[in-house]
Amino acid sequence: MTFRNGLASLLRPEDSVLVLIDHQPYQLANVNSHEPQMVINNTAGLAKAAKAFGVPTILTTVIAARGGLLFPQITEVFPGQEVIDRTFINTWEDRTVVDAVKATGRKQLVIAGLWTEVCVAMPTIQALGEGWDVTVVTDASGGVSVEAHQVAIQRMIAAGANMMTWLAVAAEWQRDWARLEQAAALTEVITQHAGGSGIAFLWEQQLLNTPVPAEAR
Amino acid sequence: MTFRNGLASLLRPEDSVLVLIDHQPYQLANVNSHEPQMVINNTAGLAKAAKAFGVPTILTTVIAARGGLLFPQITEVFPGQEVIDRTFINTWEDRTVVDAVKATGRKQLVIAGLWTEVCVAMPTIQALGEGWDVTVVTDASGGVSVEAHQVAIQRMIAAGANMMTWLAVAAEWQRDWARLEQAAALTEVITQHAGGSGIAFLWEQQLLNTPVPAEAR
Amino acid sequence: MTFRNGLASLLRPEDSVLVLIDHQPYQLANVNSHEPQMVINNTAGLAKAAKAFGVPTILTTVIAARGGLLFPQITEVFPGQEVIDRTFINTWEDRTVVDAVKATGRKQLVIAGLWTEVCVAMPTIQALGEGWDVTVVTDASGGVSVEAHQVAIQRMIAAGANMMTWLAVAAEWQRDWARLEQAAALTEVITQHAGGSGIAFLWEQQLLNTPVPAEAR
Amino acid sequence: MTFRNGLASLLRPEDSVLVLIDHQPYQLANVNSHEPQMVINNTAGLAKAAKAFGVPTILTTVIAARGGLLFPQITEVFPGQEVIDRTFINTWEDRTVVDAVKATGRKQLVIAGLWTEVCVAMPTIQALGEGWDVTVVTDASGGVSVEAHQVAIQRMIAAGANMMTWLAVAAEWQRDWARLEQAAALTEVITQHAGGSGIAFLWEQQLLNTPVPAEAR
Amino acid sequence: MTFRNGLASLLRPEDSVLVLIDHQPYQLANVNSHEPQMVINNTAGLAKAAKAFGVPTILTTVIAARGGLLFPQITEVFPGQEVIDRTFINTWEDRTVVDAVKATGRKQLVIAGLWTEVCVAMPTIQALGEGWDVTVVTDASGGVSVEAHQVAIQRMIAAGANMMTWLAVAAEWQRDWARLEQAAALTEVITQHAGGSGIAFLWEQQLLNTPVPAEAR
Amino acid sequence: MTFRNGLASLLRPEDSVLVLIDHQPYQLANVNSHEPQMVINNTAGLAKAAKAFGVPTILTTVIAARGGLLFPQITEVFPGQEVIDRTFINTWEDRTVVDAVKATGRKQLVIAGLWTEVCVAMPTIQALGEGWDVTVVTDASGGVSVEAHQVAIQRMIAAGANMMTWLAVAAEWQRDWARLEQAAALTEVITQHAGGSGIAFLWEQQLLNTPVPAEAR
Amino acid sequence: MTFRNGLASLLRPEDSVLVLIDHQPYQLANVNSHEPQMVINNTAGLAKAAKAFGVPTILTTVIAARGGLLFPQITEVFPGQEVIDRTFINTWEDRTVVDAVKATGRKQLVIAGLWTEVCVAMPTIQALGEGWDVTVVTDASGGVSVEAHQVAIQRMIAAGANMMTWLAVAAEWQRDWARLEQAAALTEVITQHAGGSGIAFLWEQQLLNTPVPAEAR
Amino acid sequence: MTFRNGLASLLRPEDSVLVLIDHQPYQLANVNSHEPQMVINNTAGLAKAAKAFGVPTILTTVIAARGGLLFPQITEVFPGQEVIDRTFINTWEDRTVVDAVKATGRKQLVIAGLWTEVCVAMPTIQALGEGWDVTVVTDASGGVSVEAHQVAIQRMIAAGANMMTWLAVAAEWQRDWARLEQAAALTEVITQHAGGSGIAFLWEQQLLNTPVPAEAR
Repeated sequence: MTFRNGLASLLRPEDSVLVLIDHQPYQLANVNSHEPQMVINNTAGLAKAAKAFGVPTILTTVIAARGGLLFPQITEVFPGQEVIDRTFINTWEDRTVVDAVKATGRKQLVIAGLWTEVCVAMPTIQALGEGWDVTVVTDASGGVSVEAHQVAIQRMIAAGANMMTWLAVAAEWQRDWARLEQAAALTEVITQHAGGSGIAFLWEQQLLNTPVPAEAR
Repeated sequence: MTFRNGLASLLRPEDSVLVLIDHQPYQLANVNSHEPQMVINNTAGLAKAAKAFGVPTILTTVIAARGGLLFPQITEVFPGQEVIDRTFINTWEDRTVVDAVKATGRKQLVIAGLWTEVCVAMPTIQALGEGWDVTVVTDASGGVSVEAHQVAIQRMIAAGANMMTWLAVAAEWQRDWARLEQAAALTEVITQHAGGSGIAFLWEQQLLNTPVPAEAR
Repeated sequence: MTFRNGLASLLRPEDSVLVLIDHQPYQLANVNSHEPQMVINNTAGLAKAAKAFGVPTILTTVIAARGGLLFPQITEVFPGQEVIDRTFINTWEDRTVVDAVKATGRKQLVIAGLWTEVCVAMPTIQALGEGWDVTVVTDASGGVSVEAHQVAIQRMIAAGANMMTWLAVAAEWQRDWARLEQAAALTEVITQHAGGSGIAFLWEQQLLNTPVPAEAR
Repeated sequence: MTFRNGLASLLRPEDSVLVLIDHQPYQLANVNSHEPQMVINNTAGLAKAAKAFGVPTILTTVIAARGGLLFPQITEVFPGQEVIDRTFINTWEDRTVVDAVKATGRKQLVIAGLWTEVCVAMPTIQALGEGWDVTVVTDASGGVSVEAHQVAIQRMIAAGANMMTWLAVAAEWQRDWARLEQAAALTEVITQHAGGSGIAFLWEQQLLNTPVPAEAR
Repeated sequence: MTFRNGLASLLRPEDSVLVLIDHQPYQLANVNSHEPQMVINNTAGLAKAAKAFGVPTILTTVIAARGGLLFPQITEVFPGQEVIDRTFINTWEDRTVVDAVKATGRKQLVIAGLWTEVCVAMPTIQALGEGWDVTVVTDASGGVSVEAHQVAIQRMIAAGANMMTWLAVAAEWQRDWARLEQAAALTEVITQHAGGSGIAFLWEQQLLNTPVPAEAR
Repeated sequence: MTFRNGLASLLRPEDSVLVLIDHQPYQLANVNSHEPQMVINNTAGLAKAAKAFGVPTILTTVIAARGGLLFPQITEVFPGQEVIDRTFINTWEDRTVVDAVKATGRKQLVIAGLWTEVCVAMPTIQALGEGWDVTVVTDASGGVSVEAHQVAIQRMIAAGANMMTWLAVAAEWQRDWARLEQAAALTEVITQHAGGSGIAFLWEQQLLNTPVPAEAR
Repeated sequence: MTFRNGLASLLRPEDSVLVLIDHQPYQLANVNSHEPQMVINNTAGLAKAAKAFGVPTILTTVIAARGGLLFPQITEVFPGQEVIDRTFINTWEDRTVVDAVKATGRKQLVIAGLWTEVCVAMPTIQALGEGWDVTVVTDASGGVSVEAHQVAIQRMIAAGANMMTWLAVAAEWQRDWARLEQAAALTEVITQHAGGSGIAFLWEQQLLNTPVPAEAR
Repeated sequence: MTFRNGLASLLRPEDSVLVLIDHQPYQLANVNSHEPQMVINNTAGLAKAAKAFGVPTILTTVIAARGGLLFPQITEVFPGQEVIDRTFINTWEDRTVVDAVKATGRKQLVIAGLWTEVCVAMPTIQALGEGWDVTVVTDASGGVSVEAHQVAIQRMIAAGANMMTWLAVAAEWQRDWARLEQAAALTEVITQHAGGSGIAFLWEQQLLNTPVPAEAR
């Protein structure tokens, strides 16, 4: 067991691959660790950030014909992309998904899904054992109870996983505001999905574009 | 002091007028009673519901040149509509706003704004004294602390105000799912802004449109 | 507005009628104020207590062909009983339900349902205006958020409703442990649904039925 | 029992008198409803706002030789002002304090103190019975437990008291940002004591005083 | 419905009578609204304060032979006093208890018990209807859930009851620290049961009895 | 200290053995970390899942003649099975229990019990030292306070234990929905004990079995 | 970094030594992580348990002449015992304390104190570096905020410390209820300080000593 | 991975260097893990403590011309000191900051900033990989949500970082109250920023300087 640190351990867009697992109606119906609207919002924000930074994203569901299709807020980000449907609850035992991930050639595996303690925990733990660097995006995930969510986070930490939240992932991919091309796309994502910062940004732009007034309030 | 009850006390679209107050960057920057993204989400949902039911909506800000423009998530619902800018913190002391409300001829006044304890409380309390039936939408509002928000709710209740949350207002305007025309519009709002219900609805539609399978999971 | 007090204001089985509203899958899927299992448990406990005390119970749903059937944990308590299906969101605007309630000849109306802020609030407020004595069972109900649930409780209090929780309703119907026939039935309900008390009761019985030992721990 | 509403019910600086009660070390040592630093901060902010709006402020302690002197953060706002020391726990039974309040000729009595459930509740309830309009500033007060604080608020509401938080009182005294003289003083108070808004204000001023740049972030 | 305020509405030792209801093992085993040790501590503190101020205290249980004897921490305060055992869950329907209360000739009825929503709520509501002035001591009570406890408080407020916490009752009985005889007894109670204040008091006494040192820390 | 990860570290029914410890009345009477009904529910759900997957389950109590018998909700799952009674608080120092576990020949030891910090922590820590792979099911356990429960979890993590919640254990045993025989049994458990998912499943089945209607809501 | 597990890692009375640090008025006055009465109660319970099991206890304060004497609830457990007064905030840099601990010849060091993040954290971290096996009793400690307390726990875990709560320590020292002599003393401690369990025990004894009745409730 | 313990691991003023990162308006506008006023207060307290102990402090911002200047409560502590402005979000990729830190020749790196999960996490993780001993001051930091803040703390712990809160850092720098010169300065900081302790200290001084009275309260 070693500490996971150093500059190389930070997420880089060119080395990252995102896997979104089972953001489906059956699962969401019993998420009790988060406000469901925030789970949808955070996952959509994460998906758009991945797209903005050119991070390949794998979409997968479990028996979607019964448990329901992936949230449209996610599929709309990737029009036309195949969603890999499985019977395995543990995504990492499904060859199609793992092959799709491997095909990207990337080793920084970023995972979010429903539920944290089942559909996220199992592939995370298995992949760690196979040498992957795995980051779990906890606030784009959710569990059947607060305890289920938190205990799963502790279990995955003990397995060597890296824990983050969606806006931190996006900021780590950006890393330097001097990278202007992605900054614009990221700002758009923030405005839609991290409203506390998005509205502050719009205010900043409004005031910067206001000629200096004679006096202040 | 009388109980507020009876069928007539329920909100009706044709008698309602919505006033959205000071959903601006300066105010949002110090909202600590709610997740800011949820305040934006709930207010946008409320605005769209009002539009769907033909409820006139008054938009107002305080010194927007400094404190920032209304959230675009709100103004986009009402393209081209004037936002009344004030210097009065208490909206109800501003003649332009009150005249606009009176011009609608409606008496069920629905208010949301930032902050609950200032920009919502003052007009609510004044209007109640002038005989208006006032409903405050608490989750499309927000205060500088949980205590500020909750104490303001208790104050407004003691002033005779009616407390609701945004989805309850929308459902009360709908009242009967047999009113099909608004139901479709409302469902769209729910899908976007009340994701826990929206995703459940999409699942329902998917499954209803699935031919009966031979056997079940 | 008057205080609701006095011996006559307490619930009596012979004057009570219970209405259970919209305990359905679509609604439960977005309950975020309570652990869903507890809502089911509490509602089943309430239903069984009503049955034990001979309190007539009206069951109703809204468009069950789409939003799903009443929880089986409830319908199993009343085998063969009709569930009144409505299109009105506001149960009290549905003639069939109101007639069924009136047919019982009882005036202490006890209501629980999903969601607190919609399906419970509207009939409660309307019935209060028509002179009914209305008690809402808050922990056999649930809302889309903690705030939605709590604000609805405050609204219904301001409308004159009486707020209780399920075990308190059951105990108020019992009133005197000397009423032995119902006590046995109530104890069975408690053992199944109020486990903290049920297990304590079983322990009490075990120890009472233990011959006095020579010495103590 | 009547609703407290209408424009006249809002606080006005010229009709207000502030009484700060027992913000002393012995009391603060067992405040468990709030972070002590926030109680000090909020009370100092309230005191400075009163001073800025010319609201007379009465300072009082109970046996300060033993329980300790008023917080310096309060006394420094009113250099040289007498602090009335009492043996009565109930401030309103102390003639000196009541005479001092009456001498101001004002009828909007604003009270904050430690503890909410003792030193604030008793004078509030007594003064209400004598016809005063009493506002309690809950977040410049504090109790020995969260329950003690909240139950006292409910008790005082049932006695007819008006509940507010410190920043809401200050904003209500301001009422209109066009009143420029007090606005500057209030802004200074906000910068020191309502940092979330104060920092936002400083940012606003910085950006307003920045010439329009060529392009935006 | 009238506001309960004015000096006469404050509790006085000579007009108060305390009724402690069902602080028994069976009830405590399913208290989930408070830490059980705090319920015992607060009730013992309340009992001792009553004794210190000469407030007569009625002790009662429901079927103690099965549900267990009153906590010894309470009975030890009143050695030899009869505990009235009932079968009625609603204490106020038991003639022995009501007669004992009436025999004291006092009209300020102070009640605490387990559970808040059953054993406290019923007698409180009935007694209010018969003209008693009833104060409920919420933190010397407890319910089967936080919601059960809080909803019961709201119900009793709507019935006209006065809500307080134990230390506030004790301080209101004291009213003036110049009443030295009770002050000593109250201080002893605080030292044992309100440790945050008790320890602060002991410190105060230690330092006051320390000769002035040459310099400070 | 090594990370616990890899496919082999996931729970398998054929390698698991479940030990349920001290789910007794004396212990439950002072559980304050969870709602008691949920502890009973979760433990019963876990027990039924174990049975469904053929996982041998050891039942044990400590001095049941005094502290009470195992909850009937557990013993009813295993009719006629012996419950091993101990005097050792630490189950792992009781030869009978350890021998029973060893007799199963399984090495994935799954433990739940009351209290987390005593009856679960001690055998977990001892067994880990003897080379067992130990998983603690935290939500089928409970402690005397939230802090006691959480600190014990942290202690057991530092000892090398794996933390999970009951539904995650069941899902990990299932692993693949293509294993149809257990899926049916698991679904029955979920319907009874994980109502948020159970009700969603029943809805899914209802809608799948509904012929495609002409139009949608 | 190694896992701390195995039977030998459990606490044994004959190998334990308890150090209680700075349970003084100055420190308690700013404890905001716990109810102060519970901190006093838990520390007294821990002290009495140590005494019951013959665990030597070192008492120490920092500048007691100014910051106040140790709580009498602790010193009363050890009449006449010296309290070592220090100027070092870090107890482990004080030779007198460390020598006293070493003189006991025991290696299982159990520490509790105020504040967790200062007076507990420093000696814990230093002693761990010197090879001691250190257990921190978190609920007999307390910090200036919930975050301060919890972050300190995480820091000490990262330093190798073992985290427990007071009742778990007592139960681990007992280990087997067959050790009757200490069991009686421990039961007395539980009755006084772990009331939820103490009252349950008294009930158990009452019922066991009740002759079997003819019938049950 | 090794435990971080031993006397040498405690913070020493002469080996510490403090880096304050991005305490700016844009960041504060979306801090939702803490009360913003407390973040400002704690950071100012930490800055003053560093100054009192001669700990060099590096101040840095990201694009201050847009996101706003450092809080004046911080810059006022270091009049005239340069604030290093960056475009890198990750401070540790900015040569100017790292060179400034290295120039101090100190190896105990203490970091606080906004947001915990972005501007604190990245430099902490990178610096740890380069061999620095890094302490994060969590309550002088803040994140966009409670989960973002807490998950970042868990991530940094897994990277080997040391977690503390501001007052603990100050006390660890002090270490011994016999160091009188810094004690006075630290006391001044506590009085301003840790009011619960500051007010207690002032009381202590008042009482110590009071001649012993004839009798006590």
